[in-house]
Amino acid sequence: MTNPGLRQLRVELGARAYPILIGGGLLQTATWPELIRGRHVLILSDENVAPHYLPLVLDRLQGKTVVTRILPPGEPEKNLGRFAQAIDDLATLKASRDATVVALGGGVVGDLSGFVAACWMRGIAFIQLPTTLLAMVDSSVGGKTAVDLPQGKNLVGAFHQPAAVIADTQTLSTLPDRELRAGLAEVVKYGALGDETFFAWLEAHADALLARDPAVLAEAIERSCQHKAAIVARDETEQGDRALLNLGHTFGHALETADAYGRLLHGESVAIGMVLAARLSAELDMAPASDTERLATLLARLNLPVDLPAGANPGQLLDLMRLDKKNLSGRLRLILWRGLGQACIVPDVDEDRVHACLANAAMERASG
Amino acid sequence: MTNPGLRQLRVELGARAYPILIGGGLLQTATWPELIRGRHVLILSDENVAPHYLPLVLDRLQGKTVVTRILPPGEPEKNLGRFAQAIDDLATLKASRDATVVALGGGVVGDLSGFVAACWMRGIAFIQLPTTLLAMVDSSVGGKTAVDLPQGKNLVGAFHQPAAVIADTQTLSTLPDRELRAGLAEVVKYGALGDETFFAWLEAHADALLARDPAVLAEAIERSCQHKAAIVARDETEQGDRALLNLGHTFGHALETADAYGRLLHGESVAIGMVLAARLSAELDMAPASDTERLATLLARLNLPVDLPAGANPGQLLDLMRLDKKNLSGRLRLILWRGLGQACIVPDVDEDRVHACLANAAMERASG
Repeated sequence: MTNPGLRQLRVELGARAYPILIGGGLLQTATWPELIRGRHVLILSDENVAPHYLPLVLDRLQGKTVVTRILPPGEPEKNLGRFAQAIDDLATLKASRDATVVALGGGVVGDLSGFVAACWMRGIAFIQLPTTLLAMVDSSVGGKTAVDLPQGKNLVGAFHQPAAVIADTQTLSTLPDRELRAGLAEVVKYGALGDETFFAWLEAHADALLARDPAVLAEAIERSCQHKAAIVARDETEQGDRALLNLGHTFGHALETADAYGRLLHGESVAIGMVLAARLSAELDMAPASDTERLATLLARLNLPVDLPAGANPGQLLDLMRLDKKNLSGRLRLILWRGLGQACIVPDVDEDRVHACLANAAMERASG
Repeated sequence: MTNPGLRQLRVELGARAYPILIGGGLLQTATWPELIRGRHVLILSDENVAPHYLPLVLDRLQGKTVVTRILPPGEPEKNLGRFAQAIDDLATLKASRDATVVALGGGVVGDLSGFVAACWMRGIAFIQLPTTLLAMVDSSVGGKTAVDLPQGKNLVGAFHQPAAVIADTQTLSTLPDRELRAGLAEVVKYGALGDETFFAWLEAHADALLARDPAVLAEAIERSCQHKAAIVARDETEQGDRALLNLGHTFGHALETADAYGRLLHGESVAIGMVLAARLSAELDMAPASDTERLATLLARLNLPVDLPAGANPGQLLDLMRLDKKNLSGRLRLILWRGLGQACIVPDVDEDRVHACLANAAMERASG
């Protein structure tokens, strides 16, 4: 079947290379079921997504022995208990090494599914069917899989590449506005960290993105995936460059972990985190403050939060940042920038300066 | 310090290559602590081993922040609950990506430690300090890490290579006879699967091995590690040849899983399993029955079991074999042999023939 709107790229990882397909209706039209070698399939999804798209997916898996696990939505489900449950599903299925895990949903479902696939019999295939903008542009690409601990996000996981990423942009039609905006934060991240031209394009198309213009959204997804695929291809296991993708994430993960009530979405935390990283860069005289303004302005136009949440505690946030995976033996390693489009890794940031930056941001929030 | 008895080899895996050191006193004399880059160390050990050797190890880790987790001995501890507990130990330690997990013990401790190290922050370093013969010749080498499920052994795990394997042969002095013999089963396996010369050497030195002659034991360990290192180097993730190392293991794992009371040690199950694999090969006219005899005779001389345990149920065992990781979509894939030293992968074994072989063995046991 022809698909005139189809965009296709490839994550170049030698024997582990895989395609990313972007387009409307791909759950039904793309040949992803042909990638499933064995007869056992475990589908993970969530209660928001499954009612809309699970029937479509099941319809394409006729002849397979399928078990489906539907999770409540939300980050708290990405835990070791759910991991053990999905593993038990595979054991009950008597899944063999040629079994496949299919992730139908957003980042939570994708990260958990990937980790389950990485560990079952030391690694089986999995296919990403992302249904949120955030999963399409970020979490489904690149093979980072994980679950969270109470002590921090993504602390337990594996590098395990999917067999394919199938981004059916029609699924975005059922995505709540707030989830769409959270995904746009990760789109903005690619411009902010390494592509000022793309950032300017996003400034020019902010209204079209919020209005869900299909062509503009597809373009934003493709350009984001190109950035991610290129970085992953040259640094699969984050020995260097790949850490740049974490711009805003050390602050963001701390905000999420501190946010026991789950009021912040991941993308929202990243939006606030990127602005904090830009502020700290300016306070350290690494970057112009005007670039912080430009970043905050675009994020605010996309209806994303840019200020610390009410009641945020700088000391607690700093403490949570100390458990970030990028740190080495107690030294704080952050992704900051030298200005828009120029993110960089700073291996040993003075904790007092970070605390001061957080305290300033909290104070402005209180008085603002 | 010079160590005249030191034997050293290397698992050639490019960027993941690592040394295996074999010799008396290495816990104290080898430079393994220099491999620890960061300041956080988690040591896993068990109640049999820790009283003897943990003080030595701790003495060499002065200046590090160390947490120790001592498990009850035995295979039932190799489970997802213990995995989660060790992960929590690392979280409590606020372990960073340059932390190291040290496995001081046998295969259970080594397999669990390796899986913990594989998953913490998507992979940190670990060092194998094997204290059983079985761990020295088999489980500590090659990067297969895992925990068991009630449904089967090693169903959840990762390929994750250690930074070094330090086999201090003095630790074998406190190893119970039965554990030593169980390790010898894996030594015999290397001869049986691919080296008739080594098998004949073992026949000639069976008494010396049982008497724990240090030079003979060290020679047996080195030759076993050479075999394992060579196979792992050419097939790290078991796409082909490496499966040959599982001679006797599909039958053996089924026996262990069926053995709810834990009466069989892993090596004992493998001894019985190898004889069953040899019998089945003969019954399928693939190999001479005289080779089965020769294998069973050597194992029996080493005081290892070669018959099915009393009460073993052929139907149950076959059912358990169906969940073996080597199978693909319900076809039974076994390691059999064409005769002594000539193991081979048989991808689709007739289940009726396997059942008949198990039933014959059970009947002989009952009448024998």
